[in-house]
Amino acid sequence: MSSSDIFIGETIGTAVLILLGGGVCAAVTLKRSKAQNAGWLAITFGWGFAVLTGAYLAGGVSGAHLNPAVTIGLAIKGGTEWSDVPLYLGSQLFGAMIGAVLVWLTYYGQFRAHLTDPEILAAHTGEEGMVDKASAPKAGPVLGIFSTGPEIRHAVQNLVTEIIATVVLVLAILTQGLNNGGDGLGTLGALITALVVVGIGLSLGGPTGYAINPVRDLGPRIVHALLPLPNKGGSDWGYAWIPVAGPLIGGAIAGGLYNVAFA
Amino acid sequence: MSSSDIFIGETIGTAVLILLGGGVCAAVTLKRSKAQNAGWLAITFGWGFAVLTGAYLAGGVSGAHLNPAVTIGLAIKGGTEWSDVPLYLGSQLFGAMIGAVLVWLTYYGQFRAHLTDPEILAAHTGEEGMVDKASAPKAGPVLGIFSTGPEIRHAVQNLVTEIIATVVLVLAILTQGLNNGGDGLGTLGALITALVVVGIGLSLGGPTGYAINPVRDLGPRIVHALLPLPNKGGSDWGYAWIPVAGPLIGGAIAGGLYNVAFA
Amino acid sequence: MSSSDIFIGETIGTAVLILLGGGVCAAVTLKRSKAQNAGWLAITFGWGFAVLTGAYLAGGVSGAHLNPAVTIGLAIKGGTEWSDVPLYLGSQLFGAMIGAVLVWLTYYGQFRAHLTDPEILAAHTGEEGMVDKASAPKAGPVLGIFSTGPEIRHAVQNLVTEIIATVVLVLAILTQGLNNGGDGLGTLGALITALVVVGIGLSLGGPTGYAINPVRDLGPRIVHALLPLPNKGGSDWGYAWIPVAGPLIGGAIAGGLYNVAFA
Amino acid sequence: MSSSDIFIGETIGTAVLILLGGGVCAAVTLKRSKAQNAGWLAITFGWGFAVLTGAYLAGGVSGAHLNPAVTIGLAIKGGTEWSDVPLYLGSQLFGAMIGAVLVWLTYYGQFRAHLTDPEILAAHTGEEGMVDKASAPKAGPVLGIFSTGPEIRHAVQNLVTEIIATVVLVLAILTQGLNNGGDGLGTLGALITALVVVGIGLSLGGPTGYAINPVRDLGPRIVHALLPLPNKGGSDWGYAWIPVAGPLIGGAIAGGLYNVAFA
Repeated sequence: MSSSDIFIGETIGTAVLILLGGGVCAAVTLKRSKAQNAGWLAITFGWGFAVLTGAYLAGGVSGAHLNPAVTIGLAIKGGTEWSDVPLYLGSQLFGAMIGAVLVWLTYYGQFRAHLTDPEILAAHTGEEGMVDKASAPKAGPVLGIFSTGPEIRHAVQNLVTEIIATVVLVLAILTQGLNNGGDGLGTLGALITALVVVGIGLSLGGPTGYAINPVRDLGPRIVHALLPLPNKGGSDWGYAWIPVAGPLIGGAIAGGLYNVAFA
Repeated sequence: MSSSDIFIGETIGTAVLILLGGGVCAAVTLKRSKAQNAGWLAITFGWGFAVLTGAYLAGGVSGAHLNPAVTIGLAIKGGTEWSDVPLYLGSQLFGAMIGAVLVWLTYYGQFRAHLTDPEILAAHTGEEGMVDKASAPKAGPVLGIFSTGPEIRHAVQNLVTEIIATVVLVLAILTQGLNNGGDGLGTLGALITALVVVGIGLSLGGPTGYAINPVRDLGPRIVHALLPLPNKGGSDWGYAWIPVAGPLIGGAIAGGLYNVAFA
Repeated sequence: MSSSDIFIGETIGTAVLILLGGGVCAAVTLKRSKAQNAGWLAITFGWGFAVLTGAYLAGGVSGAHLNPAVTIGLAIKGGTEWSDVPLYLGSQLFGAMIGAVLVWLTYYGQFRAHLTDPEILAAHTGEEGMVDKASAPKAGPVLGIFSTGPEIRHAVQNLVTEIIATVVLVLAILTQGLNNGGDGLGTLGALITALVVVGIGLSLGGPTGYAINPVRDLGPRIVHALLPLPNKGGSDWGYAWIPVAGPLIGGAIAGGLYNVAFA
Repeated sequence: MSSSDIFIGETIGTAVLILLGGGVCAAVTLKRSKAQNAGWLAITFGWGFAVLTGAYLAGGVSGAHLNPAVTIGLAIKGGTEWSDVPLYLGSQLFGAMIGAVLVWLTYYGQFRAHLTDPEILAAHTGEEGMVDKASAPKAGPVLGIFSTGPEIRHAVQNLVTEIIATVVLVLAILTQGLNNGGDGLGTLGALITALVVVGIGLSLGGPTGYAINPVRDLGPRIVHALLPLPNKGGSDWGYAWIPVAGPLIGGAIAGGLYNVAFA
């Protein structure tokens, strides 16, 4: 796999992942969106089909990791060269940032309507419950569209939740015998992985909103900090390390578990 | 692929697509339908399985484009002859119009009950939120069953949203290695594409209702203008160019992006 | 395919279809069911996965028609011997009746609780909206668990709706290149067909509750008439011919359309 | 298949099954979970994708039975050695207990918040309707996250419901021609089985909450009894034999039915 394949596949694939994943959060959160208040099932299926679309697009090019936790797990398994890892991670972060900008462009009018609504600004309740109001009063009304936040803010608990959820994801990917080119997702594999992600969202997403992917959280958070959104509030950098560290640890644990139990 | 194959496959396939897609909008919108108010998730799954059914029916005959944006994208990629494009587009528009008439026949009694209900006529709220009430006061109570409309009416914003959503759709189709006969959708490909369409609806459908297909919007809009529905209101022709132009531009961008990045 | 294969496959497969399909109607309708009021999306997915389970079970034995409309369509196409048709239809009706009895056994306590509840009996609103209250005042509170009923009672309209919906179903099955043994459903075909049925339910089920299968309606209606349910009310025999005739006509039209357009 | 393969595959696979399955019950039940009150459709899809993930993980190792009823059915069919059955069952129970502990760790903060909420403790309504309040007043507010309970408590009725639902499940697995290695689930088979489980939940889960798997109920119930949860209430041991005996009887009936009708 050439460096340009990795760069193109991971950048475009992760951009599509975040465009659709962040998109569904925008769709159910923002005022004057047809999908406002469509519910948790809509969010979890939206993220699952975001994985499907991104993985399907990039599968034949870069293997469609789209997630540093997957890349780390595959490297530990031996399915990806360690020397390729930095390029995978950089491309994923770059793609995630592009995706978050595309969410903003897609919902430009809705962001403006939402962030200038006096009632929403007064209540700061626009995050669809993504942020613990009691302990994070400064988080803005649209941060939940970009990044995850815990319902109960407690570093160890939140980290454990993210680690467990990521182990499930990465182990499910590593045990696939369907990889496309040896270290990525094949056609049916992309579908199964997408439904596994729906399942993780439904089952393990309750406490922290299931980042399970460092760039899925960090890339859009950087974009949230940079975008010229009115009244956007803070980007909650105090929490930002957990959805990075948790998934990386989870990916590494899954890789090790695979080598011990399944190899 | 013979001309009659293209005509038959695209006409019947697009008719089924619009019958089921328009059907789910009728089902959740109209008075005295068992599915009234079934919600956004029902709409998006309904449209996805409409794509599945149409693509599955027509896949072995015409390649099941069912969408001028797909045809344009495939022509730019080189998977479809440019000389076949007019027949594809004409058959798709014809099929879409047939599908819209079939929706009317299927829901004949419900249309009548809905459009003669004094409360609904007074409020003009029968569109299931498909039309921006403030800026399009003349749109009728059932137009949303036929065609899309924006929540916030702004040509550039609406166009950008449709372009982005269509690029995702067409790029996901072009990168499939599963095409049936080289330029259409295979069996598993039809399923994946259907779920991608559910995902686009959930994630990117909030602002404009995701036409992502010129004939999906234009064909039923023409039928809306022609049908003898009582109290149907206007067909909102002022907006009609956006769900045609946006998807066409998006399909062309996807074709170009494919040739640059994936070919 | 031997006569005993047809009998066993169609009887068991259709029994499972109706057990799960009638089951989901019981689950969302009856008092003291965990799924009460789970909504239209639950009903449509429940029926779709009922088709999946029945078709999957019987696919390798009898080809899994499970529906006289499918059998008629396949016979017209030439995929099933006309001499086998009576055995298919009889086995399907027998299986449907067994399935309806199994629904009753599964929900025995819930039926009793529901049918002896004074409030439900007073209102006759337990049918989950399956029956048009104004024009069918004698339909009982649980008939909708067994058989379909129209929201607006009009023979021609209801017949047209059932015909259109059945043409979509049978045409989608006839055009499958995935038939198992030449005249039934293969593995992926069973999944696709199941999702097509979800789509038909979401999109075309609003007016009549989508029988799209004569035995799906007639078998359970006979069982409803026979079961010793307290306060069950009438079995609405005046409507019973429509969900038989409509799907049979639809299956025949689909078979003819296939021979003209797709063969 | 070696003993260590069976032990590893069944333990890890069943742990993942219960982590995700119990997880979705925690997600929709517990206070301060983002998915609280997400509804029955979320629960049934959550359990279905739990089966998918566990079966997919363990399929290539142990055949992914993950359920004593499946193991019994396969042994009767002849697809599993009777001498392997004890190891399968023991590993499944062990895995189920690990999974239940992982649910507790994932939702640690939510359990604490829920079980110390005065309003919830006063009402004992935290079980998401999993327990018949009238006849099981001592069942605690979170038992429904671990184990099943009937809406109407009647041993024969509850047993019949569990038997019927399990026969459907096991028969659907036994009739698959897609087994991986001869006695387990293949790739597409895992997906189909997962959707069959969604269907069983939607259609047959109303009365008892569809254990359909002895260890799915017993393992977490033991963990519920052992965990240091404040104010957790009783573990309802009086009901515990039904979701063990029912599925075992159902699995045996399915195996016998397979041998008589399908072999």
